[in-house]
Amino acid sequence: MNLILLFEDDFIDSGKSVRLLGRRYKHVRDVHRVDVGNELCVGRCNGSIGIGRVTGINDNTIEMDIMLNRNPPAPLSVTLALALPRPIMLKRILSSVSSMGVKHIILFHTHRVEKSFWKSPVLNEENIKEQLILGLEQARDTILPKVELRPLFKPFVEDELPGIAKGTLCLVAHPESSDACPRHADSPVTLVIGPEGGFIPYEIEKLKSLGFTSVHLGERILRVETAVPALLSRLF
Amino acid sequence: MNLILLFEDDFIDSGKSVRLLGRRYKHVRDVHRVDVGNELCVGRCNGSIGIGRVTGINDNTIEMDIMLNRNPPAPLSVTLALALPRPIMLKRILSSVSSMGVKHIILFHTHRVEKSFWKSPVLNEENIKEQLILGLEQARDTILPKVELRPLFKPFVEDELPGIAKGTLCLVAHPESSDACPRHADSPVTLVIGPEGGFIPYEIEKLKSLGFTSVHLGERILRVETAVPALLSRLF
Repeated sequence: MNLILLFEDDFIDSGKSVRLLGRRYKHVRDVHRVDVGNELCVGRCNGSIGIGRVTGINDNTIEMDIMLNRNPPAPLSVTLALALPRPIMLKRILSSVSSMGVKHIILFHTHRVEKSFWKSPVLNEENIKEQLILGLEQARDTILPKVELRPLFKPFVEDELPGIAKGTLCLVAHPESSDACPRHADSPVTLVIGPEGGFIPYEIEKLKSLGFTSVHLGERILRVETAVPALLSRLF
Repeated sequence: MNLILLFEDDFIDSGKSVRLLGRRYKHVRDVHRVDVGNELCVGRCNGSIGIGRVTGINDNTIEMDIMLNRNPPAPLSVTLALALPRPIMLKRILSSVSSMGVKHIILFHTHRVEKSFWKSPVLNEENIKEQLILGLEQARDTILPKVELRPLFKPFVEDELPGIAKGTLCLVAHPESSDACPRHADSPVTLVIGPEGGFIPYEIEKLKSLGFTSVHLGERILRVETAVPALLSRLF
């Protein structure tokens, strides 16, 4: 936790101070091991970053005076459309892409996504938010990404994706492509990533018909959780 | 498993065929769901890649005729020296860097590496090899990386690292650096990555005194398992 993320309910004294309990209280006490007077990096969810000065610690809560005066880091100009990964991997990918600065994530269905994945509790709103927050706390960011679920391939790709992709560099990561993924994109990107086992030919053709270029990262086929940071790092 | 990795003990019929059992047998039967006559991508550990044609399946074993005629993908020209991560993360990092083509990995101690990590069973030779193999099977590679353990910082950095680093681009990833990590290195790289919480100033100064340039990946502080693929993808 390189930044303590603060929410509306944490603020007291008309917004000049916060009182933390639960997970963040325990982390600050046991990992940062703060004393009164110590300063910590804090940020208001969807707002500014600054310093929290510890004013009191007791058995269940910690209080800090807050000064917020800096902008969070710039987001990546990307919409990441990801075929729904298996739940255990999804958790890690959500915190990882949140830490890298992705602010718009769409999880969608393809032929090779197991239908049971859509029933996983990992997809509950609160559980998704928890992973996103872990990523923000790691990266010292405050802007919560938006995550959308699209459990039907065709309506998503036909009706919605063209509007999202408009005016952006449209890439679909596919190991069998002839083109290498470009380095350092100068424009906003819509990046589509398939499931374990890849897209089926119909799906790739559909994406190409919408103007997506199919790109690879070399001869090697990477797991989705490795491919995602590798693609983002290469593009931005 | 995009490639079935074959070992000396698998070969029968003076090397023209293999017999698989255990994990690989179950995977081929249950995930690939092969029949006699089907072909699979195979490779000999530290050797060539090719095709295995299924000749027999029974309750415990599968047999294939083997033709190996292609080189594995080119390795990355990098030595990755990584402060020992926490065991659960280390497992994933080993398979991830193995899949990306790293062939020389050194796990070393720093001030902020918990001493208990060195006692983890994840560091047993067999357990390390298991993770490396998962990475090779994923990426369709055959060359097993070399992993070395260096539980003392000073002797490793003073006596050994200068020889490894000689003639290479020497980089240490450190979020507080003023220089951005270069894109697309043209020469071999020695890449040093610190622990959760980072290097202490003494360690960074020591590395700089050996000619290492301290580089960052932007304002965001990434978890080691996200930073490693991000750095490798940016450099190669």
